[in-house]
This record gives sequence, C-alpha cells and structure tokens, in this order.
Amino acid sequence: MAELETYITEHEDHFLEDLKGWLRIPSISTLPEHNIDVVRAAEYAVQQLERIGIEGAKLIPTNGHPLVYGEWLHAPGKPTLLIYGHYDVQPVDPVDLWETPPFEPTIRNGNIYCRGACDDKGQTMLVFKALETLMTVNGSLPVNVRVLVEGEEEAGGESIEAFVKAHPEHLQCDAAFICDTGMPAADIPALIYGLRGIIYTEVEVQGATRDLHSGSYGGVAPNPLHALAIIISRLKDADGHIHIPGLYDKLHKPTQAEKDFWEQDPLHINEALRDEMGVTQLSGELEYPPLQRIGARPTLEVHGISGGFTGEGAKTVIPAIAKAKISMRLPSELRPFEIIPLFERAVKDAAPAGVTVTIRSIHSGDGVLVSPDSAPIQAAATALKEVYGKDPIFTREGGSIPIAALFGEILHAPVVLMGFGLPDDNLHAPNEKYSLDQFFKGIRTVVRFLSILGQ
Amino acid sequence: MAELETYITEHEDHFLEDLKGWLRIPSISTLPEHNIDVVRAAEYAVQQLERIGIEGAKLIPTNGHPLVYGEWLHAPGKPTLLIYGHYDVQPVDPVDLWETPPFEPTIRNGNIYCRGACDDKGQTMLVFKALETLMTVNGSLPVNVRVLVEGEEEAGGESIEAFVKAHPEHLQCDAAFICDTGMPAADIPALIYGLRGIIYTEVEVQGATRDLHSGSYGGVAPNPLHALAIIISRLKDADGHIHIPGLYDKLHKPTQAEKDFWEQDPLHINEALRDEMGVTQLSGELEYPPLQRIGARPTLEVHGISGGFTGEGAKTVIPAIAKAKISMRLPSELRPFEIIPLFERAVKDAAPAGVTVTIRSIHSGDGVLVSPDSAPIQAAATALKEVYGKDPIFTREGGSIPIAALFGEILHAPVVLMGFGLPDDNLHAPNEKYSLDQFFKGIRTVVRFLSILGQ
Repeated sequence: MAELETYITEHEDHFLEDLKGWLRIPSISTLPEHNIDVVRAAEYAVQQLERIGIEGAKLIPTNGHPLVYGEWLHAPGKPTLLIYGHYDVQPVDPVDLWETPPFEPTIRNGNIYCRGACDDKGQTMLVFKALETLMTVNGSLPVNVRVLVEGEEEAGGESIEAFVKAHPEHLQCDAAFICDTGMPAADIPALIYGLRGIIYTEVEVQGATRDLHSGSYGGVAPNPLHALAIIISRLKDADGHIHIPGLYDKLHKPTQAEKDFWEQDPLHINEALRDEMGVTQLSGELEYPPLQRIGARPTLEVHGISGGFTGEGAKTVIPAIAKAKISMRLPSELRPFEIIPLFERAVKDAAPAGVTVTIRSIHSGDGVLVSPDSAPIQAAATALKEVYGKDPIFTREGGSIPIAALFGEILHAPVVLMGFGLPDDNLHAPNEKYSLDQFFKGIRTVVRFLSILGQ
Repeated sequence: MAELETYITEHEDHFLEDLKGWLRIPSISTLPEHNIDVVRAAEYAVQQLERIGIEGAKLIPTNGHPLVYGEWLHAPGKPTLLIYGHYDVQPVDPVDLWETPPFEPTIRNGNIYCRGACDDKGQTMLVFKALETLMTVNGSLPVNVRVLVEGEEEAGGESIEAFVKAHPEHLQCDAAFICDTGMPAADIPALIYGLRGIIYTEVEVQGATRDLHSGSYGGVAPNPLHALAIIISRLKDADGHIHIPGLYDKLHKPTQAEKDFWEQDPLHINEALRDEMGVTQLSGELEYPPLQRIGARPTLEVHGISGGFTGEGAKTVIPAIAKAKISMRLPSELRPFEIIPLFERAVKDAAPAGVTVTIRSIHSGDGVLVSPDSAPIQAAATALKEVYGKDPIFTREGGSIPIAALFGEILHAPVVLMGFGLPDDNLHAPNEKYSLDQFFKGIRTVVRFLSILGQ
C-alpha cells in the first residue's frame, strides 16, 4: 500500500492534467450542436483506458451517443467488478452566472471549477486513476474489471439501457460500482443504499389556434399559460403534497432505523440544506424530516415553462400554446411504468375546460434500494474507513441513476454507490466544482476498495 | 364630394405604396435594437404630413421614442380636431408562424399582410390620406387639425403622456379622433364608447440563492416556478374569477340598454369569437355575456413565464429565480393607481412560504367611457352611415388606449374612437393584416367625418 500511496502522491499534477483535458470538451448530451464534442469526450476516455492497460478499449456505437467499454479479466478466481461512469454533462445556461468559463477548468481555493468537474467526469476520472495506480505499481489489478462509461446519463440513458438489456453476457459481474454520488460533508464518508427513480415529461397545452391579443380576447379566450399554472398548482400544493390519486398508496413505510436516523438528524442536514440553498426555511412536506423528503418521498418539480412573451418590456399576447417541463422523483417502490399513467391521468383531470392537453414522456428510470450487508458494499465501507478515519454512514440520496436499478435487475449484481461529491458542488448549476482533496481521497479509497475486494 | 371620391378612386395605388413604404420599417418600440427603425418610421410620417401640406411637421424629442406633430389651423370659426395615431408596432415572434416575412408587405385575397398593417400604421395612414384628399382637391381642410403620432403605444406610451400633461396648450382642441379600433364585421360599422385600461407587471419570485438539482434538493427546495403557478392560479381561478380583494367592489353596474345589447347579442359575437379563436367553447366568466366580459369586466392574463430550462430535452433544474408577465384589463371605473396596490397585495398574499416576491409595474393606463351624444361622435356616426349604408353600432372594446383617457382628462375633449380593423386582423400575432376594402372605406369615411364636422 505504501508504494501505491507514493504513486498517487507523486502523480497528483498528472492526474489533474488528464482530468482537465477531459473537462475542456463540452460534451453536453442534450444539445445536438455538441454531438461532436460528445464523441470527442468518449474517445478521450478510450485513450485513458488504453494507457492504463485496460484491454479492448473501444467505442460501442448506439442509436444515440457511444458507450465506452474496456475490460481486464486476468485475475482468475477473483470477483469481477463492473465499473460505471458517464462522460456527458449538463447544459451550462445561465452562462452569465459562471465566474469562469464553464468549459475552462480553473483551480480556486482547493477546488476545480468546470461543468462536469464533479458530475461525472471528475468522479469517473478518479476511478480511472485508481486503476492506473494499481496497474502501474503492481502490473495487475486485484480483481477482474469491466469498465462501461456512457454518454447519455444527462439525457435519459436510453442507449446504455438498451445495451445492458441486449448484451447482459458481455457485462457479467459479481458487483457493480457507480461513482456518481456524494457525501454529506468532506469529513463524513457515505455509502448510498437508495436512489430515487425519475419520470421527466413535457406537458403541452393548446388553447386557441393562434396567438391572441389580451385586449380583444381577454375574458373569453383560453390562456394555456394560465391553464398550466392551474394544472401545476393542482398537481402539487403549497405544502409539497402531490395530488396524484394512488401515488402515496404504493409507497412503502421506512424502517424504524431509518426513521430514527432521519429524525435525529445527526449530520444536521436541516441547517446544512438551509445554508446550501441560502434560505431561511426549507420547503416541502414539513411533517417529514428533510432526509426522508429527499431520499424516500416522491416529489414533483416544474423545470421550465415556455410560450408567450418573456423578453424585455411588454407584449399583451395570449399564446396559442404553452409547455411545461415537469419531472417526478420516485422512491424505488414507485415504478415509472406504473406512475406515468397516474401522472397523465392527474394532469388531464387537473386541466381547466377549453384547452387540449398533450403529455410527452421524455425519459424515465427506476429507483434503487440495496442491502448494505453484501460483501462488495462492506469492502467499500472498509476502504472509506481507512481513508477517512471513520465509518461511513449509510444513506439514501434523492437523485436518480436509472442504470443502478438496471444493473440490479438485469445483471443480478449488488450495486456499490460510492462517490465523493460534496453538497456545494453546484451540480447542474453554474460554477460546478469538485474538491481536489476529495478527488485524491477518492483515488485512494478506490485503490483500497479493489484491493479489499480481491483479498 | 364627387371630386373627393374621384381623387380617392384614382389614387388607390399611390395610397397603398405610401403605406407599404411605412410598413417596411420594422419600428418595434419595445426592442432597443430597433431604435433606429423607430426614428425612421417617425421621419416617414413627417414626410407624409409635409407632402399633404400640414404645417410645421416635425419630430418632438422625448425621453423615449419621438413624437410626430403637425398642424393646419386656417379654418377660423371651425372646430379643432386633434388626430392621434401611432407608428410603432408589436414584436413579431414567433416569426416562423408568418406566411410571408413580417416586414415585407404582401397583398393576398384583398388584404395587405405585414406587422402594423392594421395596428396602427394602416389606420393612421388612412387618416393621412383623407387629409391629403381634402387638401389636394379643396386646397384646404374643413376643420382645424392638429396631428400627433406617437412611437410608444406598444411600449406603455410614457412619452406622449408626459408631453400631453406638460403642454396641453399646444394640443388645445374641441375633439380628439383616435383611429386605432375595429368593427365587429366588415358590414357592421362601429363607434367605440368604452375602452379598458391596463396594468402590465412583472412578478419575480426568488427561491434559493442558486439553481438547484431536483434530485438532491427536490422535497426541501423552494421552486419559484411552482410558486408562480400557485400565485397565478390563486389570482384567477379556472372559471375566470379574479381573486383580488376589493376589485369587483369598485365595478359599476352596466346600464339596462348595455345589458340588453350584450344578452341579445345581435351580432352573434359568441359564434364569431369561437370561430376566430378556433375553439369549441369560450373561456372566462360564463355567467356574463361575451361582449360584457371583453368590454366591461376586468380580466387578468399571464403572458409569459421565464426561469429554469425550456430547451430541447431535459434538465432537472430548480431555478433560483422565475418571472411572470401578468397584465390586467380594467373598465374605466377601475383606475390603475387604485388597482395596482390591490394587485400587489393579492400577489404577495398568494405566494407560498419560502419565496421572496417582487412586483414591477411595466406600464399602466386608464380606461375610457365617453358619451355617444356629443357632436363629434354624431358626425362620425353620420359619416359611417354614408359610407357603409347603415347606422353604426355603439360598443365597448376590450383593448386599451391609455391616451384616450388622457385626452379626456387633460384636454377636456370628447374622444371619437372610430377605426376600421376587423376581428381576424391578427393584431399582435403572426400574419397581421388589414383589409384593403376597409382601408379605402376608412379614407372615404374620414373625409366625410371632417366635412360634416366643419359644416
């Protein structure tokens, strides 16, 4: 282990340079004008894997953005670990709120700032660098490894889902490792045992067949923007309760241990969340503790509303059409295929008379709930304890990694959700960053995780 | 009158060419990038007035877009008429819905299509052409005339308001004539005796101090878009009722004659509105007749909502800030200065906990209600009857012309609201048009109106 530590310490600059090169590629998967950048980011990952000594590193074409795959299977008798990451990133708007350009990695105060610095190029790169450390120092890995990196995590992940379903034999493994989550604080290591699923939709409302003038038609015209406001306010009230009949019926009760953990809030999440958001009070279902609201309660959010006029000044238009992007986060027992019809019915029932409502599902993915007792998860816990000097907490996160559910369902493998992001990393927002200390600790932790797993 | 008729008939092409030249100038008053076009459109009006023989035609600088002024005061003993129009136009988005480019005047099926074809370059130009006809054929006008054309009608009209208030002596008149309204159908001439006032606001809601990820924060974060949906749905319900305490208390009861006219609906407005909007049922306060809802009831509309993500695909952002453009139309007894505080109070009361609401008034203007019995309005009625072969109806319109109220209040002049727009002219919408037949009948009507007024 001393030799491995030395290698890491001596190669910090080199690790960072390799990360910066990746970060500079604006691989925004949802914007077609970045399709070439997405491919360039995938090729960059292939080159990284080749240099490490991962074999057969290649792009796998899909109907969307390519997958990156590589393997090293020369540890007979040892378990096989499927390592997952994603090389695509979120859009950057509003771009004027970035302190430095979103695709120019910049180091300030011990952090690296860039879109993707954390989510998920930074976290994927630290796993690559753990593999590099082990391969370079030992000439081999302690376990068999398959690496699968996708380019559509921020765009619904359809291609990887299709690939996993079509080729489970290529991905045979004893455990999967996803490095795309966070920790509550820099001194509180964490393993995630639950993630929420997601449905992401666009609700379109049509009123008249053409835009109308509010002077001549105000009082008799349907207003699709007003109809959307009514629909949204009926779907979720001011107290965070979702009014979708049947939704809460399907929700499982948490265990007593979970309830105790949430209510005692030993991590002071309540205060931490207030600070992170810059608010004086939290919103949502105040009758549940914040950790439960984020990890184990379904939520519904509107992300944007288009239609009409939003420029400078005034235009008295009643638009013919307006659209809202609305998503739900779902604890694992609420399956998207069951919830989408309930959502659609509730939206249509909530619509006022005189408008036509169309609902389009943009993407969806199951949540996940795993047992903390399996050997791979215990190996990760031991590795975290060795690096951070304390036992990790086991917690649920509110985000969605649909592929985690799919690995469990199709590959029958326990999923280790261990990541090193911090709450103030500004995921999906301007000024995304990643702590350099977390990046290097992450490398050390993953080196140990693989070593323990191979013992 | 025969000579005047002949002049009009022989100069139709010339009249249209002069209109087209004006229409080609994209004088969008709300978009700063068109400021030069706005000045060009004003200069075009000055040249028109000079050619007619209107004296002292000039631009009057203001804090915003210039006013155009000219006068002809050589009819001693005759009344003085203040003629108003506006040379600015609405924005053109969504531009892809225009069948021909918005600033390339195109004649199809007896209509001229262009932004401003009706509102208000077409209607202002027909008044100029009536003046030209009288001046050219007779060498003089039958009444004294002051012409005042503004460039901020679509942008709040602050500059003309300031000018009228500061220089009422320059505008001294016996009546004002505004050619910026319409008729219910091409064979139903109309005089407007009521217009609604307007308040136009932007409501800004701030939640967290930064954009948030709905996975990590959904369930505890304030969502300004959701808060706006709740505010808007609380301000106006699905049945068109506005929930602003005190609003309806100030509303006057209509006369029995008005109620009878609205309820009998001799013009079949109900069906006409359905056809124009392409809907199967009207929206709003169904317990009132449509004409009353448009002309004599206050209404509230949301025109656009910004914040978050509305591009292609999916972004799971909870924005820090969202904004809505919201306006109200107000019968004349509901004065903006009294209603704005009620609106602001209602918006703040409707906001859910956890967000900060800021309300900005973009512009406002009083409504107007005039007596149909005054001499100038009766002269206009006679002129309409001579051209259209039937008595005009007297009706209220739902749109707002704040300057009409100001002329009444500051100049103590009765306001004649006579215009030739048709319901399908697509004001403020793609494919705005003006009927050529209405344009030429309008010229004939205004020639007669001035002649009768000068008798």
